[in-house]
Amino acid sequence: MSRIAVINGPNLNMLGRREPGIYGSGSLEDIQRALSGRFQGRAELGFHQSNSEGELVSLIQTLAGAADGILLNAGAYTHTSVAIRDALLAVDIPFVEVHLSNVHAREQFRHGSLMADLAVGVVAGFGAASYELGLEGLLGYLGGRESP
Amino acid sequence: MSRIAVINGPNLNMLGRREPGIYGSGSLEDIQRALSGRFQGRAELGFHQSNSEGELVSLIQTLAGAADGILLNAGAYTHTSVAIRDALLAVDIPFVEVHLSNVHAREQFRHGSLMADLAVGVVAGFGAASYELGLEGLLGYLGGRESP
Amino acid sequence: MSRIAVINGPNLNMLGRREPGIYGSGSLEDIQRALSGRFQGRAELGFHQSNSEGELVSLIQTLAGAADGILLNAGAYTHTSVAIRDALLAVDIPFVEVHLSNVHAREQFRHGSLMADLAVGVVAGFGAASYELGLEGLLGYLGGRESP
Amino acid sequence: MSRIAVINGPNLNMLGRREPGIYGSGSLEDIQRALSGRFQGRAELGFHQSNSEGELVSLIQTLAGAADGILLNAGAYTHTSVAIRDALLAVDIPFVEVHLSNVHAREQFRHGSLMADLAVGVVAGFGAASYELGLEGLLGYLGGRESP
Amino acid sequence: MSRIAVINGPNLNMLGRREPGIYGSGSLEDIQRALSGRFQGRAELGFHQSNSEGELVSLIQTLAGAADGILLNAGAYTHTSVAIRDALLAVDIPFVEVHLSNVHAREQFRHGSLMADLAVGVVAGFGAASYELGLEGLLGYLGGRESP
Amino acid sequence: MSRIAVINGPNLNMLGRREPGIYGSGSLEDIQRALSGRFQGRAELGFHQSNSEGELVSLIQTLAGAADGILLNAGAYTHTSVAIRDALLAVDIPFVEVHLSNVHAREQFRHGSLMADLAVGVVAGFGAASYELGLEGLLGYLGGRESP
Amino acid sequence: MSRIAVINGPNLNMLGRREPGIYGSGSLEDIQRALSGRFQGRAELGFHQSNSEGELVSLIQTLAGAADGILLNAGAYTHTSVAIRDALLAVDIPFVEVHLSNVHAREQFRHGSLMADLAVGVVAGFGAASYELGLEGLLGYLGGRESP
Amino acid sequence: MSRIAVINGPNLNMLGRREPGIYGSGSLEDIQRALSGRFQGRAELGFHQSNSEGELVSLIQTLAGAADGILLNAGAYTHTSVAIRDALLAVDIPFVEVHLSNVHAREQFRHGSLMADLAVGVVAGFGAASYELGLEGLLGYLGGRESP
Amino acid sequence: MSRIAVINGPNLNMLGRREPGIYGSGSLEDIQRALSGRFQGRAELGFHQSNSEGELVSLIQTLAGAADGILLNAGAYTHTSVAIRDALLAVDIPFVEVHLSNVHAREQFRHGSLMADLAVGVVAGFGAASYELGLEGLLGYLGGRESP
Amino acid sequence: MSRIAVINGPNLNMLGRREPGIYGSGSLEDIQRALSGRFQGRAELGFHQSNSEGELVSLIQTLAGAADGILLNAGAYTHTSVAIRDALLAVDIPFVEVHLSNVHAREQFRHGSLMADLAVGVVAGFGAASYELGLEGLLGYLGGRESP
Amino acid sequence: MSRIAVINGPNLNMLGRREPGIYGSGSLEDIQRALSGRFQGRAELGFHQSNSEGELVSLIQTLAGAADGILLNAGAYTHTSVAIRDALLAVDIPFVEVHLSNVHAREQFRHGSLMADLAVGVVAGFGAASYELGLEGLLGYLGGRESP
Amino acid sequence: MSRIAVINGPNLNMLGRREPGIYGSGSLEDIQRALSGRFQGRAELGFHQSNSEGELVSLIQTLAGAADGILLNAGAYTHTSVAIRDALLAVDIPFVEVHLSNVHAREQFRHGSLMADLAVGVVAGFGAASYELGLEGLLGYLGGRESP
Repeated sequence: MSRIAVINGPNLNMLGRREPGIYGSGSLEDIQRALSGRFQGRAELGFHQSNSEGELVSLIQTLAGAADGILLNAGAYTHTSVAIRDALLAVDIPFVEVHLSNVHAREQFRHGSLMADLAVGVVAGFGAASYELGLEGLLGYLGGRESP
Repeated sequence: MSRIAVINGPNLNMLGRREPGIYGSGSLEDIQRALSGRFQGRAELGFHQSNSEGELVSLIQTLAGAADGILLNAGAYTHTSVAIRDALLAVDIPFVEVHLSNVHAREQFRHGSLMADLAVGVVAGFGAASYELGLEGLLGYLGGRESP
Repeated sequence: MSRIAVINGPNLNMLGRREPGIYGSGSLEDIQRALSGRFQGRAELGFHQSNSEGELVSLIQTLAGAADGILLNAGAYTHTSVAIRDALLAVDIPFVEVHLSNVHAREQFRHGSLMADLAVGVVAGFGAASYELGLEGLLGYLGGRESP
Repeated sequence: MSRIAVINGPNLNMLGRREPGIYGSGSLEDIQRALSGRFQGRAELGFHQSNSEGELVSLIQTLAGAADGILLNAGAYTHTSVAIRDALLAVDIPFVEVHLSNVHAREQFRHGSLMADLAVGVVAGFGAASYELGLEGLLGYLGGRESP
Repeated sequence: MSRIAVINGPNLNMLGRREPGIYGSGSLEDIQRALSGRFQGRAELGFHQSNSEGELVSLIQTLAGAADGILLNAGAYTHTSVAIRDALLAVDIPFVEVHLSNVHAREQFRHGSLMADLAVGVVAGFGAASYELGLEGLLGYLGGRESP
Repeated sequence: MSRIAVINGPNLNMLGRREPGIYGSGSLEDIQRALSGRFQGRAELGFHQSNSEGELVSLIQTLAGAADGILLNAGAYTHTSVAIRDALLAVDIPFVEVHLSNVHAREQFRHGSLMADLAVGVVAGFGAASYELGLEGLLGYLGGRESP
Repeated sequence: MSRIAVINGPNLNMLGRREPGIYGSGSLEDIQRALSGRFQGRAELGFHQSNSEGELVSLIQTLAGAADGILLNAGAYTHTSVAIRDALLAVDIPFVEVHLSNVHAREQFRHGSLMADLAVGVVAGFGAASYELGLEGLLGYLGGRESP
Repeated sequence: MSRIAVINGPNLNMLGRREPGIYGSGSLEDIQRALSGRFQGRAELGFHQSNSEGELVSLIQTLAGAADGILLNAGAYTHTSVAIRDALLAVDIPFVEVHLSNVHAREQFRHGSLMADLAVGVVAGFGAASYELGLEGLLGYLGGRESP
Repeated sequence: MSRIAVINGPNLNMLGRREPGIYGSGSLEDIQRALSGRFQGRAELGFHQSNSEGELVSLIQTLAGAADGILLNAGAYTHTSVAIRDALLAVDIPFVEVHLSNVHAREQFRHGSLMADLAVGVVAGFGAASYELGLEGLLGYLGGRESP
Repeated sequence: MSRIAVINGPNLNMLGRREPGIYGSGSLEDIQRALSGRFQGRAELGFHQSNSEGELVSLIQTLAGAADGILLNAGAYTHTSVAIRDALLAVDIPFVEVHLSNVHAREQFRHGSLMADLAVGVVAGFGAASYELGLEGLLGYLGGRESP
Repeated sequence: MSRIAVINGPNLNMLGRREPGIYGSGSLEDIQRALSGRFQGRAELGFHQSNSEGELVSLIQTLAGAADGILLNAGAYTHTSVAIRDALLAVDIPFVEVHLSNVHAREQFRHGSLMADLAVGVVAGFGAASYELGLEGLLGYLGGRESP
Repeated sequence: MSRIAVINGPNLNMLGRREPGIYGSGSLEDIQRALSGRFQGRAELGFHQSNSEGELVSLIQTLAGAADGILLNAGAYTHTSVAIRDALLAVDIPFVEVHLSNVHAREQFRHGSLMADLAVGVVAGFGAASYELGLEGLLGYLGGRESP
């Protein structure tokens, strides 16, 4: 059973209370609970959230040898953090990048990602379902499904 | 049961024979067969492929009133076609953009999309699984799952 | 009596059904009927529409010696087609570029035109009336009215 | 009967003497006389010309409540004046932007307009006829013709 | 008692009538009356407004030796006038730049200022209060309050 | 009485010791003492400073329901932090952006702000007085003074 | 004997009638006849021309296994078509890019090529002779001549 | 004897009082007196200065047929005025562009000129002597000296 | 004896385990041990590492008066942190910037540095030896060796 | 018989020893010998090579009246030398630009040419054969073959 | 009597034979003879020309202590040579930059100068007279005329 | 014992006499003498300097097989010479790039290097010591010290 770290970046602890028109009304706990339910028996999930770039870097470092895959929503740091990119390079664990909202339909500075080119794949725009779809994709990849 | 048009753009009829290192070794028929199997009873799927921008525009126009959602891999036209964008705007049918490969890890001119901002969501990088994940996301959206 | 080809590009066959807030509720047939009525006896009008860039190129080629002027709404291809520009250069027939909407008030990628610098003139923003004004201007030009 | 202010910016008082290869050999008075003749009984025209950006700003301000539409050829200020844009925003009178020459076929710095996105529409390239076509379009708009 | 010239650029004479959603419903006279009241006995205020870049340049030139500070809302010329910048450099009088609206939340071409780098400071976004806050800041600066 | 959080970003704890030519010789405590004195009875002030982007994000999150306004000097993070922008969006509390120095007169990379477009207003360049002016502006805004 | 597909893009069917100052007065048939004559016995030539991007894509796809080399003048699509690039990548047949005119001496938008980096080599500016030189180069390459 | 209009733009009436480190301590009258003395009997000089772009445009228009050459220091309008460029084009009088300071050694926005490409030549950096050198050059040009 | 703070930014604690092809197989402890050995008696070394931008800012602040020089490898923050730049400006301690890899040979976003212009010098590309060379250079600078 | 100068720029004397993967294993002498053999009796060839931009400029100057055509591989100076461009303009001798490698498939700074727009034509990518093809094209051009 | 080095860069030895429409029909010797005649007794002139950037650098170096001023037409190297800039900085001799043609009216890459910001002044566009005017300006500067 | 060529580009022969505030007061001979002393017995040093790009290219070519490493200060050519880059590629000898001054603290056009990405490493800003540090690094690299 794959060990998966589900990592959320800054402000994702505010889900449900933050701009519900963009991010939906469910909380991060709701998302995590749904993931746990759906993937029970298929993946061992660990949940993490931090508002601090440095903590996220440190967290990712600790995953070397401890996780088989990462489901990553780096939030705002997606667009600004070379340090998180470097941490992902350092541990070299397959990861999938997910976003709740369709970042392509938002401000210009949310279009670029400093880590997407390293990812197995990217899922964006499906709200909480982005996590589920992203995790499906990650498990398929880890399970040896021919990757493109 | 949702009526879904699965639309593939230029060169996707070459799948399996085309740069397998990037696109995988399965054919488009394999992908379509897998989709039909997995979503049997949940969606009525229509499959389309064309190398011609104009035919894709015309095809999308005919879907008004005839499809509830579109699963779209516009291939190279993703990056160059304002006309396909306009057709999507004209019919106003919810669609999901999918890519086999992780476009963010490829040439600079494949990073931008002229239609992603109109999509419900985007799924890229999971090979044939991108279609399955994208269709799951589309059906969830059509089924009223709270969208972000 | 001048022979005028009225050429419409992609998605203009959707007029009336397509984003009426931007393009108005009249159909392309309405526009063509109004043009025929207003210019009866002053111009011999031929109407064309295609969603295909290649067909538009081929169509323009056939006009050499067969049309005295072109009234052109190339739609989305206005912004992306060097091939249509080349066809217009090849046949060297005076043409007027028209747009239903005020393209300057829309997305950045609709501000540039790959053919406007070759046109006699440009008319944009008056809805269906753009065609009538453009045709008036074109006939005036062909009739020897001093051009600027 | 609509009250229309016809406003000309810098150097348009030189028409006929100024670069006739680009701007034609008729004078501004010729244009104004032709407009008066053609639109007699359909519009009440007031003619204005100034070389001064500030005077044009002040002039536009005085039109609030005194004009139903503006036919504007801001000349060189089209490309540089945020102040005229602000004046147009301040009085909120529908206006049409006209140009004698096809600005798209001239220097790069004449391609952009700081006010076209606020206009009902734009007409360029037909010489003196640009004014007539523009005024037709403006009156059609004011007369309730469905605008795109 | 400091002699302060309060200078307003183009279209600020339209305050109250001009885009009230952006600029508020008070008139320029209201602002000037409020300033006079609040700063009575603390500053000798002179009020100026012009729509003409040239007049603003000439006005600033006359202030040499006649004013101790300038409270400047150059309006649209903030973004385009090298000449006003040069006039400010020529007289070398401390000035504060004020804006009614938050220019950072508006069009891209309102983000840059050709004079802000010469100012003591900038105040933007507080409506009529921007003038009061700016004048407070200017008087503090002139009164020797340690400036950063 | 409005509850106001006064938030200072990285290096502002060094005030007085840090580049006094640019930032003045007063300490952050001096600024805070002056603010407390001047606004006693008009606002309930809470003072915060952190060098960490993540802590600032977390701090802003805790203000939801606990503060009526924020006086924010995000220091260097003004120019680089999408995460703080997102936190401000999440809590949706009116805030004023202040800077000690005139950022427009400094390096190019200090001209842009990733949060100013969300602010009520901006005050920059008056040294310690920027805080007082900014707080005046914020209280005026909260007190219902018509905002532009 | 090498099987070579000679592929011409949009408007090349107009050769001889189209801008002879730029493209020469010979027709495409003249070029093809000259090629057939010169390379008789050395190469088996197949000639193709289409104005449609999609047809060119489809045509290239059919060449897999059926041609040993491609002599390609994609005309205007050279500068705009990612889809033709993808088709060339898909079939992976060595090709030479030829242009009649010296594209470097023409408009800026003709300087870039979306496929030249995939080509064996490029020949431009020699009119009809560009085809002959390009085919010599291609046959040399296919014949094992050491390639750089 | 050539009739020469010496035209000075905004803030040049401040010479001697304005940034003497950059512009020297002589006044505009000093420059004009020196020019009159040196060129007595060789040229008929007319002196003009205005801070207003519009007045400069109108002034240049009046020179048609009344001046053989223009010595132009357009000051700040050098960098921003398309209208003065258009006036120079309209009257088509040979002119020389002069600058007191070396504009290449100053701010980036003073490096470009909207009129230098139309000039006979440009002289910059010699202080008051720029006028004398420029006038020498202009008279040489008008006198038939072979121009490059 | 100079007191030197050796500061390492994010992910440098992963040395030896992180992309050994780029960063070498030695650990950060190895580097520190080698430095201690080589510079024993010549410098008093303090070693620091943090993944957090804020902690690095705070750390640098504490060095005021406590260190004579800094040997800084800010890692990914080299390219993104204005806050660390500001901290270095605040304490005004001479520092040398070092990199293990040749950043010029890597991704474009690693070519710029937000702090190199403030450094005594820069050493990059020598692996662990970059630290030794950088420290030699720093000690030479502190020892009064004529600096360029 | 045409007199042709074959000019090679910097580092081409290293052919065969320099990056054989890119430039092939033949030496410059090999290329020259092959050219001499193939074109014996058709052209009088003079061979030149220099690493110095100035020498190449001087060499080209001496060809005025002494050569009928130039076959030019300016190597690295292709991308940086305005002086060689000017020399080519000065002597006005028809020339063909050749490159061994396909410059479009290499670094970005090798894509532009400062002289290609002046050339009769360009041949790139065929290794040593580029010279032969280029010389064929040049001789055809000099021999009066209709040029495009 | 001032010692002046008159330095000409690449291709200026071709004057009279090179593009006479741009550079005039006089030779460099003609220019030098005219300068010698006009400035006899006022300046001691030394004439230099080289096509080689390196020789020009070396030449300028030898002028330290041997020339009081430089009249420099660096030709094409004006736009590309940082090395000549550095040589001018190294010897720190006042120089004037001259150009025969109006570089502002030519190609974009001739608009920038890598040395003009270091010059006393610039004279361009007067053909051979540019040298005379430039030398007048240089002598005036060396003679103590107040420089701007 | 490694054979090292120490190569200096344009103007470095002026060291000590050239802008001592930037480059220090020592001469190039001083630097070379110091290097010889410090590295006696560890490296066989050959010293070269040229102001000519072409000579530097030729010099580097002669080092193939004759030097084990290069210590390169290409001076101004660092930023402009593709030819020197190509020579370094051609001989494929490990080299270290050194600069006396901190190029990052100087003009924008000195920030880029056309050869740094090929270097073992870069050392900048330590004055004459940059050479010593660079040579240490180069010898370490040649001596097999694990390179990063």
